[in-house]
Amino acid sequence: MSQKPPVAVVAAEVPARALKSNYPEPFAARVAGRDKRQLGEVFGLSNFGVNLTRLAPGAQSALRHWHGKQDEFVYALDGEATLITDTGETRLAPGMCAGFKAGTGDAHHIVNRSSADFVYLEIGDRTPGGGVGYPDDDLGLTIVDGRMRFTHKDGSPY
Amino acid sequence: MSQKPPVAVVAAEVPARALKSNYPEPFAARVAGRDKRQLGEVFGLSNFGVNLTRLAPGAQSALRHWHGKQDEFVYALDGEATLITDTGETRLAPGMCAGFKAGTGDAHHIVNRSSADFVYLEIGDRTPGGGVGYPDDDLGLTIVDGRMRFTHKDGSPY
Repeated sequence: MSQKPPVAVVAAEVPARALKSNYPEPFAARVAGRDKRQLGEVFGLSNFGVNLTRLAPGAQSALRHWHGKQDEFVYALDGEATLITDTGETRLAPGMCAGFKAGTGDAHHIVNRSSADFVYLEIGDRTPGGGVGYPDDDLGLTIVDGRMRFTHKDGSPY
Repeated sequence: MSQKPPVAVVAAEVPARALKSNYPEPFAARVAGRDKRQLGEVFGLSNFGVNLTRLAPGAQSALRHWHGKQDEFVYALDGEATLITDTGETRLAPGMCAGFKAGTGDAHHIVNRSSADFVYLEIGDRTPGGGVGYPDDDLGLTIVDGRMRFTHKDGSPY
């Protein structure tokens, strides 16, 4: 960071990330109504990321997935949405939170089936490695030279 | 964790941590009006901690401090407070956030000078080592056999 970061900011005033998704189609369309404001980056944080994320009606947080080595945590701020894990469906409302421990293999995502935006904080650490899995979709992810490369589950490219 | 953790919880319903402070007196008194609800622990997270923290009027988040290796982040949820860093004083109000990058040596804490509770989320990772410093107070911290031991700055015990 070439400039000294601010001491504090209004989170909603941080510009949304320009990149909408890393997924290949048809999966990118599922998160098209998702905006991420990368709050941790504002302050130069590198050990974990904090996003203020908004899901428009119909949008998903991600494909349902698990991480091998990175913990994740979400805190609901505004609106309502459905958290889907191996356990089933759980309603999220403001003031509720959920955590997704690395390595359990229990996949999760959040789907906004309501008619209003759902806004939440999402936190994830940046422990390297460990892999990610998408049990519901024909998607695999490998890291090649530090870059994400998505494939079909049989390894063939999208 | 012997029992399977819940999928999601209402953060304010998580019991507050019984331990009020690790500080020796006279410093423990400064944080006596502070409650921490350890949200990450509910889900067995270990790579970072997430607390829902409440500062009663007059309470502080901590002594003003820096970490050598751990990033920290706060998100204000309710009430108002004063963030104090080397830059000076910054007002925090709901929807504002601040981050404290490891290793900068810029110390921070939050002081509630208002007449109402201040409630916020605080996140910190658990990268080992790196030390912590308290520029405003006669306090030093060393880790002995994995346990925190506070001393005067000259190394003598409290």
